[in-house]
Amino acid sequence: MSSERYVIGVDYGTLSGRALLVRVSDGFAVASAVHEYEHAVMDEYLGDTGIKLGADWALQDAKDYINVLKTTIPEVLSKSGINPADVIGIATDFTASTPLPALQDGTPLSFLPQFTNRPHAYVKLWKHHAASSHANRINELAHARGEEWIKRYGGKISSEWQFAKALQLCEEDKEIYDATQVWVEAADWIVWQLSGKYIKNICTAGYKGIYQDGHYPSKEFLAALNPEFAHFVENKVVHKIGQLGNRVGGLTAEAAAWTGLPEGIAVAVGNVDAHVAAASAQATAPGQMVAIMGTSTCNVMVGEKLSDVPGMCGVVEGGIVPGKWGYEAGQSGVGDIFGWFVNRFVGESYLRAATEAGLDLHNYLASLASHNPTGSHGLVALDWENGNRSTLVDHELSGLIVGLTLATKPEDVYQALVEATAFGARKIIETFDESGVPVVDFIASGGLIKSRFVMQIYADILKRPIHITESEQGPALGSAIHAAVAAGAYPDIQTASQAMGKLKRNAFMPNEKNSQVYDALYEHYSALYREFGNGKIMHSLRAIRNNALSQAGN
Amino acid sequence: MSSERYVIGVDYGTLSGRALLVRVSDGFAVASAVHEYEHAVMDEYLGDTGIKLGADWALQDAKDYINVLKTTIPEVLSKSGINPADVIGIATDFTASTPLPALQDGTPLSFLPQFTNRPHAYVKLWKHHAASSHANRINELAHARGEEWIKRYGGKISSEWQFAKALQLCEEDKEIYDATQVWVEAADWIVWQLSGKYIKNICTAGYKGIYQDGHYPSKEFLAALNPEFAHFVENKVVHKIGQLGNRVGGLTAEAAAWTGLPEGIAVAVGNVDAHVAAASAQATAPGQMVAIMGTSTCNVMVGEKLSDVPGMCGVVEGGIVPGKWGYEAGQSGVGDIFGWFVNRFVGESYLRAATEAGLDLHNYLASLASHNPTGSHGLVALDWENGNRSTLVDHELSGLIVGLTLATKPEDVYQALVEATAFGARKIIETFDESGVPVVDFIASGGLIKSRFVMQIYADILKRPIHITESEQGPALGSAIHAAVAAGAYPDIQTASQAMGKLKRNAFMPNEKNSQVYDALYEHYSALYREFGNGKIMHSLRAIRNNALSQAGN
Repeated sequence: MSSERYVIGVDYGTLSGRALLVRVSDGFAVASAVHEYEHAVMDEYLGDTGIKLGADWALQDAKDYINVLKTTIPEVLSKSGINPADVIGIATDFTASTPLPALQDGTPLSFLPQFTNRPHAYVKLWKHHAASSHANRINELAHARGEEWIKRYGGKISSEWQFAKALQLCEEDKEIYDATQVWVEAADWIVWQLSGKYIKNICTAGYKGIYQDGHYPSKEFLAALNPEFAHFVENKVVHKIGQLGNRVGGLTAEAAAWTGLPEGIAVAVGNVDAHVAAASAQATAPGQMVAIMGTSTCNVMVGEKLSDVPGMCGVVEGGIVPGKWGYEAGQSGVGDIFGWFVNRFVGESYLRAATEAGLDLHNYLASLASHNPTGSHGLVALDWENGNRSTLVDHELSGLIVGLTLATKPEDVYQALVEATAFGARKIIETFDESGVPVVDFIASGGLIKSRFVMQIYADILKRPIHITESEQGPALGSAIHAAVAAGAYPDIQTASQAMGKLKRNAFMPNEKNSQVYDALYEHYSALYREFGNGKIMHSLRAIRNNALSQAGN
Repeated sequence: MSSERYVIGVDYGTLSGRALLVRVSDGFAVASAVHEYEHAVMDEYLGDTGIKLGADWALQDAKDYINVLKTTIPEVLSKSGINPADVIGIATDFTASTPLPALQDGTPLSFLPQFTNRPHAYVKLWKHHAASSHANRINELAHARGEEWIKRYGGKISSEWQFAKALQLCEEDKEIYDATQVWVEAADWIVWQLSGKYIKNICTAGYKGIYQDGHYPSKEFLAALNPEFAHFVENKVVHKIGQLGNRVGGLTAEAAAWTGLPEGIAVAVGNVDAHVAAASAQATAPGQMVAIMGTSTCNVMVGEKLSDVPGMCGVVEGGIVPGKWGYEAGQSGVGDIFGWFVNRFVGESYLRAATEAGLDLHNYLASLASHNPTGSHGLVALDWENGNRSTLVDHELSGLIVGLTLATKPEDVYQALVEATAFGARKIIETFDESGVPVVDFIASGGLIKSRFVMQIYADILKRPIHITESEQGPALGSAIHAAVAAGAYPDIQTASQAMGKLKRNAFMPNEKNSQVYDALYEHYSALYREFGNGKIMHSLRAIRNNALSQAGN
């Protein structure tokens, strides 16, 4: 055996899972492997059952998560050429809130033959937005009753979270609800599959499960929502909580057989993809905001003190590193918006030209747009195609674009959409600053940092340097760092983060001339943000849509 | 010689000219031919000179208009097999305001070798929108001075019209302005080429040339705009006015040689494409609104009395039929908007599927959209990609779309754009109704009536039957009717219109269920119309754009 030791981080994203094999001594990424989920996101039909899903549904199949372990871990072991016996720990991170109904032994209800045709038996992916009305009721009731916990979530819990999704389940499919013995986050379920032990990580419990100061919402509160829901917490939620970086247990023989890893190595407490990325970016000190920019953006930051930041997703003690307040905010659509536009709204001639130029459509549009002076497209957009997570916490908002003329080209709209997401990021930063939790550094992580075009626009609009995590796999590296801590290689996350994390400071610097133009456009963005953020028009359009679809039997 | 007599109508559109050979007795269209302009619309570069045009410019080359005569008229004569000696008259109609600078003998300045490289020497097409600031000054001054004529134009003259474009010429290229001996509408210029006589038709003079009650704007008014502009009217504009349906003169030998028509046959007073279409639709009685729906829409209607309709384009005595008030309103982008979207914003997979289905993209999108229940796209748009002609008369407005989600597909946006133009039409009708000039019948004409999808949406949104001109060539047929009157075959336009016009009543009937949904969407359209119609955001976005472009030297 060599003296080097290794850990594995597995990052479960929206469409795929990625394993990263990392050297413990310095965080060097030795090998990585990706596995696309066979069922991807089910948002129109339930797999191949032919069953149509409702508007705003988004499900996944938990089988796909196991397949990630079975394929990617053997692949990184093989690619790296290391001795598997040198791997000392594994940690995972997940999208969230991505809960599923399971039996007491962890079997997902969707695995049971009698429930395979029941949409509510499946994993509800973070971007399942069909529980909006349930979230609204939870919020209204929380304010009406003066529940203290609502302040920890910027005054609003999201339709994406555990309680809204569970209430939807309870009210729409009582049989599945009754059969649910455990309402478990996929982040904890996968750890359960690896270690044989069910431990709820403080991060998803706190940010997505309304667990604050050792308590969940009261039985009285739940009963007031719906008497059938009164015992939800005690019957399906309450379980032992684990702190981040802790060891849950050893890898089971079954999981060792799936992966080729040694039985008994440390399995760390689960985590959320965004929060774990802070460790990969050496961003465990107060004021270091990490933006994990992928299909959506999640902003996480450690803060010294507890503060009510309007529209933040949540603040949880120990939510990023034990013993400190961890803040979370986010944008529910970023890369998803760019992908949506590029896949659906870019004409054939562009595809041909991009192919000739040897570029994918994103980079081709970026290359065209980067020749245009800032502001010359005459557009401003609201980046709410997937709702607004922060600072409005409203998933029934929608996208807007203004300034279109017959001269407007696809690259113009593409740029305006990128800018809109950067304006959204600026709105979040300003809100933190104004709430006494100042943002000192902005550190970008995630898939979008590969786009120089996107990053430069962020620098120009945020008017500050953009630091980036040098690792292209921030969450996976973050998980690997947690695995190293769980395995005892480092005393705590902060120390491991300094040794193993990767940060490139000042990767993109703002261009002052562009920033001036963007200040003017941001004023319009802000005006539209206020005007449409009240939801008056957008909620009504959604209601008209939903009504039309339901009348048509969709 | 047979006893049948024929006339020819030539309709000059935005991209092509069309000749229609028509039987005098009943208006039967015997043959038609189209010629695409070689230079199309010059809106980026001046032909092949490499000279870049400014933002919002749109020029044409008058040579293309002569080529329409030389190609299409021989073609219709040949196709029809009739004896050319049986053709008794010709009339033409044109887009407007489409003016050009010419010498006293009618030679366009762009034909002079020393001016071929000068953008201002060319025809300024109706949709040349670079004279917005000039139009604004004209309007402000007119109101400041209390000019009576401004009321005849809904309180605003347009940047598309003769005076705004001429003021732009005067201030941007004084040499060309000084060389201009006649500032002539293409509608009159083409008649001049056919007959050898320059007669200004009352229709363009009235609607586009601020000719009211026998007068143009005063010398004092012009001098107050710019002292250099003081003598514009007396030096370059004033000329004999001709009433619609009158004979200007006989076809010249030169024009007979171009066309193969008999020398000396009646050449009618020129006309605007929209206004002449009223005759083709048997719509010469009060309250019969004809919408000529093509790249843009022009609404024309005869009214009993003179009334101030907010945002109408104009009211002119004798502007549609002699002796009656002719009203005009319009939408500056309709088919142009659909074409812009389809050409630029529809992905390659759609093109492939459309090709497989044997449909063009418009019809393919329409077929997809027509499967969706009304309102199910959740979108509402403002149809201002080419500005708003009525009721806001503001070409610096721009398009907006709201309600976008990651589920939004190209067919959704396409439908929303079609609906937006129909909402715009509804706004115009309501404004006429509220101004004491009620709209009794809505008659659609022009290229868009071929789309059942578009027409049904209009019926549902306007909540009234859509009658259509059965002729696919409304303006060309209207011109042929005017030619018959000019040739003396009928005593007046009304009589000729009843004999030769083509109208299919109740071609599309509203669907009440859809109308209810559209009422709800129209409320949002109206709210956005008010909110963004003040131009605050859109004007600023345009200023940011123009500033960015000018700083970059574009």
